Amino acid sequence: MTADGKPGAARTVAVLGAGSWGTTFAKVLADAAIATGTPRAIKLWGRRAEVVDEINTSHRNSDYLKDIVLPESITASTEVREVLAGAELVVVAVPAQSLRPQLREWKDMIAPGAVVVSLMKGLELGTDARMSEVISQELGLPEERIAVVSGPNLAMEIARQEPTASVVACTDSATAGWLARTCTAPYFRPYTTADVVGVEIGGIVKNVIALAVGICEGKQMGDNTKASVITRGLAETSRLALALGGEAKTMAGLAGLGDLVATCSSALSRNHTAGRLLGEGLTLEEVGRKMTQTAEGIKSGQAVHELAGKLGVEMPITAAVVAVLAGKLSVDQLGPVLLSRELKPEGDY
Amino acid sequence: MTADGKPGAARTVAVLGAGSWGTTFAKVLADAAIATGTPRAIKLWGRRAEVVDEINTSHRNSDYLKDIVLPESITASTEVREVLAGAELVVVAVPAQSLRPQLREWKDMIAPGAVVVSLMKGLELGTDARMSEVISQELGLPEERIAVVSGPNLAMEIARQEPTASVVACTDSATAGWLARTCTAPYFRPYTTADVVGVEIGGIVKNVIALAVGICEGKQMGDNTKASVITRGLAETSRLALALGGEAKTMAGLAGLGDLVATCSSALSRNHTAGRLLGEGLTLEEVGRKMTQTAEGIKSGQAVHELAGKLGVEMPITAAVVAVLAGKLSVDQLGPVLLSRELKPEGDY
Repeated sequence: MTADGKPGAARTVAVLGAGSWGTTFAKVLADAAIATGTPRAIKLWGRRAEVVDEINTSHRNSDYLKDIVLPESITASTEVREVLAGAELVVVAVPAQSLRPQLREWKDMIAPGAVVVSLMKGLELGTDARMSEVISQELGLPEERIAVVSGPNLAMEIARQEPTASVVACTDSATAGWLARTCTAPYFRPYTTADVVGVEIGGIVKNVIALAVGICEGKQMGDNTKASVITRGLAETSRLALALGGEAKTMAGLAGLGDLVATCSSALSRNHTAGRLLGEGLTLEEVGRKMTQTAEGIKSGQAVHELAGKLGVEMPITAAVVAVLAGKLSVDQLGPVLLSRELKPEGDY
Repeated sequence: MTADGKPGAARTVAVLGAGSWGTTFAKVLADAAIATGTPRAIKLWGRRAEVVDEINTSHRNSDYLKDIVLPESITASTEVREVLAGAELVVVAVPAQSLRPQLREWKDMIAPGAVVVSLMKGLELGTDARMSEVISQELGLPEERIAVVSGPNLAMEIARQEPTASVVACTDSATAGWLARTCTAPYFRPYTTADVVGVEIGGIVKNVIALAVGICEGKQMGDNTKASVITRGLAETSRLALALGGEAKTMAGLAGLGDLVATCSSALSRNHTAGRLLGEGLTLEEVGRKMTQTAEGIKSGQAVHELAGKLGVEMPITAAVVAVLAGKLSVDQLGPVLLSRELKPEGDY
């Protein structure tokens, strides 16, 4: 035990979800343990038998991470009970809209005292609940056992071991510190914060703003326009976070600005790519067929828009993206909508 | 006269400096007048006779703006006295380090009552003075006659009339509003602020951060790393601005975040390009030979570093860039320096 009352680092970890980010974070946890000489077993749950088999036999998840070789301390299973057995740390990386029903199935299998960490960046449709709220509601855990990891974290770059910073959020600083120690790898550097709300909102809304930036790019707009959309996008994200009790400094940090800029710059981002395809004139259906993985912003956008409406927060970029997705605004009309504001002091927008 | 006591918009304008931004802003001022039916003469001063001749005869400045056609209301001259005669608005766009000696020459030619606007993004070496401070010191004008324009404003994109937002800063809101009206073109939308310090510091330091991001790019680092450098770069820019009396919201706005993101995303940015060449292994001298225009960050970096030192503001990215430029740190060492920090709460960095 360390001075802050939490064990030095987790030794048994379950990662639920074998997509690109779940698998990559399993690798981070494995490499973190190897770097510090900590014995650690990481069990990865996946729905598809062929993915699980490939991880166990050739230490690869080629559907999501191409030729990246995973450490041998990662094993996979389609049996969630086996994966969860005795895990001190449970990392959840499933599609946002399926989290609640899955937790109901898993609830009784989670070990007493386990810390549950969300890697998910979405808002539940209908309830407008953040992922940590769904975890809290379904598992009935106290706040100090629920954490969130978010930041400028394009999974493929981390899988390639390119140096990356991230943010670990938990209202309890001992848990945050313990989780940060658990996932500090030579190429992955987490910072800690108590602002769970700010970190989650940053991760959720950036997918919607990335759709807007992607649309601008698909319409061949320049870097001035895209930078303006990013700037004003972060401003509306911050308004929402503040209305929910988040902090401005979180939005200016890695999980706010950092994640937004990484997502909006990268060809690896699904939301950015989906926006670009929309901007190039494809329909939402055509975009869906072209992409193998979900662009979370397409689903969360509507929930963000509803939440903003309930709270009376002005989010013009989100509103415009939702209107485009609903077929109520054409991508040609989006540009003028984003930039046509009356002359006024900047702070007021 | 409008209600706020300033004339509706300037009718006679001098633009001093016929580089890419000076020429482009002259075009913005011309197009703004055309769009509103305001009669306006824009006189552009340039040092080189061939540039001036090309503007007067074929309405082009091909060295800087390729095949962009300038409005006929723009005329050019090498005679500064002629350009300044009767100008209500004097826009200055000369290299930062030559501003002071040039103002000494021009001082007596500036019309009484003229508003002087800086388009420059640099800090004077030796004095660490911002451009508006040099203007104030040399011309002895009251604050309400000195303004600054800055934002995510890549000149070539604006010259191509791609929609762009910008910020007009003056401590006097009547002057800011007048200038904003004067330069609102169909593709150029200015917001106003009283935070001259924040706007200038944002524009100055982003050139240094763009060098750092360029170096990362030249070293083939990924979008996660670049997004982290941008995020922490804006954090150190904000610390400097706050220490000088600027406002946090300016740094989160178009002249802070917006300008930084545009510069760091664009292949059109000189500072970004210079950094990329350094990252690819070229020496500072080789970079200088390869580029036709000055990368302001190379000169201002040292001044920013000195100013931060005087004020006791921690600016680790700026310090690292200055060390690279001085040959005291190799570009290979820069990456680790940018990301190697102890585990700690994010707000403290």
